[in-house]
Amino acid sequence: MKNTATLLISCPDRKGLVAAIANFLYTYNANILHADQHQDDDADLFLMRIEWDLDGFALDMGAFEAAFAPIAERFGMAWKLKRSAHKPRMAIFVSKYDHCLVDLLHRWHTGELACEIPLIISNHEDCRRIAEFYGIPFHVVAVGKDNKAEAEAAQRALLVEHGVDLIVLARYMQVLSESFSTAYRHKVINIHHSFLPAFEGAKPYHRAHARGVKLIGATSHYVTEVLDDGPIIEQDVTRISHRETVEDLVQKGRDLERIVLSRAVRWHLDHRVLVYGHKTVVFD
Amino acid sequence: MKNTATLLISCPDRKGLVAAIANFLYTYNANILHADQHQDDDADLFLMRIEWDLDGFALDMGAFEAAFAPIAERFGMAWKLKRSAHKPRMAIFVSKYDHCLVDLLHRWHTGELACEIPLIISNHEDCRRIAEFYGIPFHVVAVGKDNKAEAEAAQRALLVEHGVDLIVLARYMQVLSESFSTAYRHKVINIHHSFLPAFEGAKPYHRAHARGVKLIGATSHYVTEVLDDGPIIEQDVTRISHRETVEDLVQKGRDLERIVLSRAVRWHLDHRVLVYGHKTVVFD
Amino acid sequence: MKNTATLLISCPDRKGLVAAIANFLYTYNANILHADQHQDDDADLFLMRIEWDLDGFALDMGAFEAAFAPIAERFGMAWKLKRSAHKPRMAIFVSKYDHCLVDLLHRWHTGELACEIPLIISNHEDCRRIAEFYGIPFHVVAVGKDNKAEAEAAQRALLVEHGVDLIVLARYMQVLSESFSTAYRHKVINIHHSFLPAFEGAKPYHRAHARGVKLIGATSHYVTEVLDDGPIIEQDVTRISHRETVEDLVQKGRDLERIVLSRAVRWHLDHRVLVYGHKTVVFD
Amino acid sequence: MKNTATLLISCPDRKGLVAAIANFLYTYNANILHADQHQDDDADLFLMRIEWDLDGFALDMGAFEAAFAPIAERFGMAWKLKRSAHKPRMAIFVSKYDHCLVDLLHRWHTGELACEIPLIISNHEDCRRIAEFYGIPFHVVAVGKDNKAEAEAAQRALLVEHGVDLIVLARYMQVLSESFSTAYRHKVINIHHSFLPAFEGAKPYHRAHARGVKLIGATSHYVTEVLDDGPIIEQDVTRISHRETVEDLVQKGRDLERIVLSRAVRWHLDHRVLVYGHKTVVFD
Repeated sequence: MKNTATLLISCPDRKGLVAAIANFLYTYNANILHADQHQDDDADLFLMRIEWDLDGFALDMGAFEAAFAPIAERFGMAWKLKRSAHKPRMAIFVSKYDHCLVDLLHRWHTGELACEIPLIISNHEDCRRIAEFYGIPFHVVAVGKDNKAEAEAAQRALLVEHGVDLIVLARYMQVLSESFSTAYRHKVINIHHSFLPAFEGAKPYHRAHARGVKLIGATSHYVTEVLDDGPIIEQDVTRISHRETVEDLVQKGRDLERIVLSRAVRWHLDHRVLVYGHKTVVFD
Repeated sequence: MKNTATLLISCPDRKGLVAAIANFLYTYNANILHADQHQDDDADLFLMRIEWDLDGFALDMGAFEAAFAPIAERFGMAWKLKRSAHKPRMAIFVSKYDHCLVDLLHRWHTGELACEIPLIISNHEDCRRIAEFYGIPFHVVAVGKDNKAEAEAAQRALLVEHGVDLIVLARYMQVLSESFSTAYRHKVINIHHSFLPAFEGAKPYHRAHARGVKLIGATSHYVTEVLDDGPIIEQDVTRISHRETVEDLVQKGRDLERIVLSRAVRWHLDHRVLVYGHKTVVFD
Repeated sequence: MKNTATLLISCPDRKGLVAAIANFLYTYNANILHADQHQDDDADLFLMRIEWDLDGFALDMGAFEAAFAPIAERFGMAWKLKRSAHKPRMAIFVSKYDHCLVDLLHRWHTGELACEIPLIISNHEDCRRIAEFYGIPFHVVAVGKDNKAEAEAAQRALLVEHGVDLIVLARYMQVLSESFSTAYRHKVINIHHSFLPAFEGAKPYHRAHARGVKLIGATSHYVTEVLDDGPIIEQDVTRISHRETVEDLVQKGRDLERIVLSRAVRWHLDHRVLVYGHKTVVFD
Repeated sequence: MKNTATLLISCPDRKGLVAAIANFLYTYNANILHADQHQDDDADLFLMRIEWDLDGFALDMGAFEAAFAPIAERFGMAWKLKRSAHKPRMAIFVSKYDHCLVDLLHRWHTGELACEIPLIISNHEDCRRIAEFYGIPFHVVAVGKDNKAEAEAAQRALLVEHGVDLIVLARYMQVLSESFSTAYRHKVINIHHSFLPAFEGAKPYHRAHARGVKLIGATSHYVTEVLDDGPIIEQDVTRISHRETVEDLVQKGRDLERIVLSRAVRWHLDHRVLVYGHKTVVFD
C-alpha cells in the first residue's frame, strides 16, 4: 500500500485554479496518482480530488497547511487533507438485523475498508457474538421511549472516548436526534431500504409491494436532521416479480442493502465523497 | 406465425381449477403452447394465462364462450379470450417529443408489435412527417385551456370511428380527464419519466437532478383518474453521474422511455398483462 | 414454513400432459401452490415444476410412486419428487478465499438456504475458524500433485459417510477428476469468476483486464468432466472502468461471485433447476 | 452550444505534466470546462482529456500547434486537438437490418450526435427510403465473392470524396479487408451482437442460445485486421430466460445493439475515447 495524501477542495470556479494547485504540488516534487475535478456551472462551484505519493514529496506534512494557505485563501477554498497513513475510526451501530454488520466486518477483515473499528454499539445483545468473532468491543446501550436522551448521551460519550470519525448505521432501527445529527454532520452514513425519495420512512418493502413496483432499491446517505433526506451517496435497484412476497423482497433486499452500504462506506473511507448543498460528488 | 388463442383468467383460488381448465382444453385436443399461473395468497386470487394452437383445436371458436361458460361460472372467473388472428387497434397520442413515437413505429414496422395503428393523434403538427413515412393517418386536435372538453370529444370520436382498443401516450403532454380515463380503463398506457412513485407529476428529471439521486428511471403504467398512480406495467433505471446536467438526463432518459414504453406496449399486445387491484401481473 | 411436495418432470411434449398431472393431483385433493412449465419446441420437450401443500393431500407419500407410475409411464416421464420436510445435505469445498464460504454460511444461518451442512472440506486450514463459528465440522484433505487420487478418495468417503446430496465449490481451487464429476453429475455447483464462455480456465480477471472489456462477470454452473463447460445455472455482470486495476477487479468480482453462487445454490435447493442437454431451466 | 477545444494527450507518466498543461492554458486565459486524466501504472502511461471554452481564450487557434509544441516535445506527447466547431464527417455502412441505422439517424436528427453524415453506403437497396427521409445520400455498392476488391475501392473512393473522418458499421454484414482496416485505423466502429470475447464470429445469438447463457450482450469496438478483436469501446448485456427462442434473442438484442453502438459513436464524436494498446479509455 502506498503512503499517499489526498486533497479535497471546493471553491468558486475561477481560472487558474488547476494551474495553481498543480504548480504547488510540482514545486514539492509530488507524483500525482489520481486527479479528478468537477465544475457545477449552476452553482459556480469547482470541486477537486487529488491524490499523490508521499514518497519523494519534498514538503514536510506538518508544514503543509502553512504552505498551502496562500493558495487556499486566494481562491476561497474549503479544503481537507487526508493521509492514507491515518486510518479513520469507524463505529458501527446495529440493532437485530445482522446482515450489513456481518458484511462490513468481513470486508474490513479482508482489507476492503481502510479504517479501524474501535467499537460496535447496539440497542440489543443479538450481534455480540459476531462482534467478538472479529475481536471488536461490543457495547449495548438500551434505547426506550423514556431514555432516548440518556441513551444518546451514553453513545456520544463512547464515540468521543474512542475518537470516532465516522458512524455507520447498519440497519440501526432508531432515529438519531437532531442534536446528534448536527454534531456528526456528514459523518453518519445510513442505509435505507428503498430507492429514495420513493418510500421514505417506515416499511418501504411493504409499501413497494403494495404499490406494485417492478424494481426495489436501497439508498445510502448521510444522515441529516430530516429523516431519509440527507445527501445520497449511492443507490442501486434489483428487479422483482409478481411471484415475490413481501418476505421475498426483504430477503432480496438484504443483498442490495449490503452492497449499497458497503460501497458508500468504502468511498467515504477512500475520501472520494464531497458533499455540496444537498448532493454528493463521488469521485471515481 | 401460429394461429393461437390465449385465455386470461382471474378468480378466487380454488382446488381443481387447473384440472378443470386443462381437461376442457384437452377435450378439444388443444396443443398448449404456453401456460403460466400465479396465486396471490393475500388476495386469495388465482391468475392464469394459457395459450394454445388453434390448428387442430376441435372447438369452433364461435362456440367457445358457450362451451367454457359452465367452468367459468363454477369457479367465478373473470376471463378474456384473445386470438392472435385479431390484431388490436392501437392509437398513439403524441405532442412534440418524437422519440417514443419513432421507436414505436419502427418496432411496429419490424413486426415487434402485433397490432394495427389506424391513427396518430397529436396536439401539434410536428410529428406529421414521421407518421406519413409509415403511412399512418395523422390527426391534429389542438388542446388549449379553454377547449379541453371539446378536444377530448373530438379525440374520442376519432377513437370510436377507428375502433381503437388501446391508446398509447407516447410523451403526450396533456392530462386526460377523469371521464376519458374511466371510459378507457386499463386501455391507456402512459410513459412517465421517473421511477414512480418517486417524482410523480411535472419535471421529474429536474427534481431528480436537484435531489442528487444516482439513478434515473422511467415507468409505464395504465392511466387512471389519479395522475401517475395507475397500475405499473414496467419500470427500468439507468445510472447517472454528477457530471450530467439536467439536459444530459433528458437525453439519457429518452432511451429509458423508449424501451420501457415499448416493453409495456408489447406485453399488453401479447396479452401478457393482467391487472388486479392496483397492480399488474406480467406473465413471461 | 409449509409442508410441501414438488414434482419436477421432463418428457416428450404431448397433448393431455397438463390435464393428466392436474387431474392426478386434484383426485387427492392437492392445493397447488406453484406451477410452471416450459416447452422446448426444438427438443420436443416438456418440462414442469409443480409444488403443492401436503396439508390435506389425501395420498400417503409412501404410496406416491406407485400411484403416479401409470401416468409417468404413459408419457415417458423422467421425474423427481422433492419434499420440503427433507432438507438436502450440502457439503462445501473451499480453499483459502473465504468470501463465498462466509456468505453461504451467513445465508444458511439466516434461513435463506433450505439445507443441512454436515461438513466443509478444504485443502487448507485457513477457513477452520469461520466453520467453527457456525458449528460445522471442518475437514482438511491436503491435495498435491502426487496424491490427487487418494485425496479424492478421502473426500468421497467423507461425502458418502455424511450422506451428501449436493457439493458446492466455493472458490475451491482444485479441478475435480472426471470420475468425481461423473459420480456427482448435476450435484456439484461451481462458481467461475468470468462471464462464461468468455475467459474459461485460469486467471479470468487478468485476462478481462488485458482484453479491455467494460463489464466483468461470474457464472455458476454444474460441474462436468469438461472444465468450465457444464450447464449454466446463473450469471451476472458488473461494470468496470479503466481506472480499475486487476486487484480492483478481484475485489469487485467477489461481490459478483457471492451473489451468483448463492442464487444458484438457493434455486437448486428449492428444486427450481432442471437440467436438459447442455442447459438449465430455472423455474421462477 | 459552447465553442470549445478539446485536447487528447497520451505520453509517458512524468512529474510536472499537469502543471505544464494547466500553466499553458492559464497563460492564454483558458476557462477549463472539463478535465480528466488517467495513469496506467503498468504501461507507465499518462492519458488526459481537457476541454476549454474558446470564448476569451487568448491564443489564436491557428497558432496553437506552434505554441504547444515545446511542451509536447518535452514530455513526448502524442496529442490531438479537436474543436467543437469542426463537426466530424461520419459515413454509415449498412446492409439489410435497419434498426441501428434508424436509431443513429434519429439521434443525429435530435442533435445527440455532433457530426455531419455526408453519405450512407450499403450493399443492398433496402435502406434507401429511410436515408432519403433524413435527406442523406445513399450509395449502393454491391459486394459479392468476386468483386470484393473493386467494391472496397469504390467505397474508399466515396469516403475520400466526401472527406469522411469516421465510419460506423451499423450491422454491415461484410468483413472489411486488412488493407481497409489499416487505412482507417481507429476510425471504423463496429457493433458485434455478443458480449465479446464470448461468441466471436458468426451467429452469436444462436450460439448463446445453444450454450444456455443467462445474459446476452453487444459490443462496439474499433475494427482491426483481426475479426471482432479490436479495442472495445462499450458493452452491455441483458437478461434472457429459457422461454426465449433464438428469434426472441435477435429481437431483444436489437435494443442492445442500438444502445451500445450509439453510445460508442457519441463518445467517439465527443472526443472521449483514447485508444492505447489493445484497449480504450473512455473519459466521462
